[in-house]
Amino acid sequence: MPPVDTEHFLGNLDQLRTIGAYKTGVHRPTYSTEDMASRRWLMTEMEAVGLEPTIDGIGNVLGRNREPGPHLLVGSHIETQNHAGWLDGALGVMTALALARAGLPVDVCAYADEEGHWGNMIGSRSLVGDLSEEDIDKARNREGKPLRDALKTAGLAGLPRLALEPARYRGALEIHIEQGTQLESKGLRIGVVTGIVAIRHFKIVFEGQQDHTGGTTMAERRDAALSAVRLMAAIDTEFPKVCGERSVWTTGRIVVEPNQPMIIPGRAELSFSFRDLSETVMDRMEACLRALVRESNRRERSSATLEEVSRLKPELCDDAIIGALEAAAEMLCPGAWQNMQSGALHDSQVLARLVPVGMVFVPSIGGISHHWSEDTKREDLELGCRVMAEAAMRLLAG
Amino acid sequence: MPPVDTEHFLGNLDQLRTIGAYKTGVHRPTYSTEDMASRRWLMTEMEAVGLEPTIDGIGNVLGRNREPGPHLLVGSHIETQNHAGWLDGALGVMTALALARAGLPVDVCAYADEEGHWGNMIGSRSLVGDLSEEDIDKARNREGKPLRDALKTAGLAGLPRLALEPARYRGALEIHIEQGTQLESKGLRIGVVTGIVAIRHFKIVFEGQQDHTGGTTMAERRDAALSAVRLMAAIDTEFPKVCGERSVWTTGRIVVEPNQPMIIPGRAELSFSFRDLSETVMDRMEACLRALVRESNRRERSSATLEEVSRLKPELCDDAIIGALEAAAEMLCPGAWQNMQSGALHDSQVLARLVPVGMVFVPSIGGISHHWSEDTKREDLELGCRVMAEAAMRLLAG
Repeated sequence: MPPVDTEHFLGNLDQLRTIGAYKTGVHRPTYSTEDMASRRWLMTEMEAVGLEPTIDGIGNVLGRNREPGPHLLVGSHIETQNHAGWLDGALGVMTALALARAGLPVDVCAYADEEGHWGNMIGSRSLVGDLSEEDIDKARNREGKPLRDALKTAGLAGLPRLALEPARYRGALEIHIEQGTQLESKGLRIGVVTGIVAIRHFKIVFEGQQDHTGGTTMAERRDAALSAVRLMAAIDTEFPKVCGERSVWTTGRIVVEPNQPMIIPGRAELSFSFRDLSETVMDRMEACLRALVRESNRRERSSATLEEVSRLKPELCDDAIIGALEAAAEMLCPGAWQNMQSGALHDSQVLARLVPVGMVFVPSIGGISHHWSEDTKREDLELGCRVMAEAAMRLLAG
Repeated sequence: MPPVDTEHFLGNLDQLRTIGAYKTGVHRPTYSTEDMASRRWLMTEMEAVGLEPTIDGIGNVLGRNREPGPHLLVGSHIETQNHAGWLDGALGVMTALALARAGLPVDVCAYADEEGHWGNMIGSRSLVGDLSEEDIDKARNREGKPLRDALKTAGLAGLPRLALEPARYRGALEIHIEQGTQLESKGLRIGVVTGIVAIRHFKIVFEGQQDHTGGTTMAERRDAALSAVRLMAAIDTEFPKVCGERSVWTTGRIVVEPNQPMIIPGRAELSFSFRDLSETVMDRMEACLRALVRESNRRERSSATLEEVSRLKPELCDDAIIGALEAAAEMLCPGAWQNMQSGALHDSQVLARLVPVGMVFVPSIGGISHHWSEDTKREDLELGCRVMAEAAMRLLAG
């Protein structure tokens, strides 16, 4: 195998960031014009390195290796959050291309919509057989647009959907930016992921009574936003008592209606999620949340309803793949790597249901991600790519 | 004077509610097509009762009485909040028309944008000389659209702006729905307003760091929405310790950025206002708010900035007008009326700077206002109209 061409790899990353460029980041929401342009560009690049590219009915782009096995599946995603960073996802796909270019027997895949514009990991879930036609019929984005319409506009309607062939692969590898500051704060350059956290995502809706702020006494009010604020404040107080050391919880989205300065909110909606590697801790946090919602309904004059949006189990990475990644990291940056868990979700978590998976992290400057200013040092990107190539060779040789 | 024609009056209200009808309410935001249609319709109705109608450069519609004085100024507003009720404002303007139709020497006025789509009482403030051309240049609605553009589209650009002629009037009268439940809960039908509360309105902006919810530990986070929630929870705890008996406070608007379930909010903005008839109580509440924002900046990792949006002093109604309204109420519904303060702002508060003012309230069913289901019994609407006519006669005779 020739050495991996990291200059070409960085060049590819720079080319990809010009599609949907926004400040120093990119804006390529799934199935947008920019996203589809990037998928077509990726297929051309796959051709150029000798792969056989296909795009399927949900937007997954798979470049199949033409050589006999054993194979590895290497990939990530190429769509982005709105006005977000240039590396989140793109790094994993461009690294996979670099491995193929170096002659390694890998299939390269860009799993569609990891960022969840239209649901929850619909690309990789489709590959593992966990996305029905009914799921697609029902799916809407946050503006209420049907997924079917988006697929039609993107030219994907009617295309067959690919199914993962577990027997084809020794395992699935993914490299991703850390999206945190653990590596940076310790001066480390590589993280070998041991597991991906569980996540539970809930919608909490408060129904009160919309009213005039001047004419309605405090005692008469049924302020839905105030009830929501009290619940969030209670979570802020109570979750630290039941959480684990690395648990996180977030209210990322708050929608108040009618959201006018001089009107008492009649409705409020929260998107609340929490994460941990331990199901026991997750169960404790969920029990706490449910108790606080019940308490809210006892105390408040606005009613609260809790609705589960999604639930993902934690997934442990494969020991053999962890071993290969550790050996590669120790060879290429001795002492400058660590094991860690992934607090963020990745497609690998879904693929792990059918194939052994492993992941590598490189540092995020300032820990910033999901923002256009997201960045990683170029030498860390190169190192990550080389660690992936070295680990792949070890796995294929093993 | 012939008796006031309450059937015609109710008919007018029913006609007006067809313009921009939404469910059982209306949608006529200021300067919208529907709002301008209602202003043109009003001018036709003014003509029909013998008034001389003018629309001015900010949208105020004034119907001048052609008879010699003394005169009264009677009016309210006809635009609405979004998807709101059919009586808020409309009642006052249709009552004024009914008084003119009955031959009373009143000028009828629909003050523009009392509902604050484009600022704060810009119509009545323009009339009393408290709205400069620079204020108009700067004004934007909540979507960021310039007021100048809206005036141009509405065909108002370049029209002269009217100035109130204080010497022309014995006083200014306004009838309005209560927008609360005080009258209804006591079984009363008329409220004679003694004063209109002060209001102070602030914008509070929190700047944190947008980040990925999975990769960022709780300790590392600078969650702007969480800091905002903690401030709102502190207000919820502390304001009851400093407020007056009838004080109210509201966070009506919460804007979180980017407002995505899986992204830590980097920015949050609150619209917070509070009201009371006593300036001493208002000062106490403002001092409490400022202390809580300072405390937030000491404790939180997101910075909070407090910006004053507007500040209105309380206004007491005129004793002679109160007396005339009380006498009229006692004559027409003995024992079924009360004195009360107005928790809501009205144009009368602005007019009070130049002329004596008085206000009448009729009950709101269930206290509901600023919502399409807002309503008042038809017999209460008729009674309110008759009380206004009777009080106007007494004032003009006095």
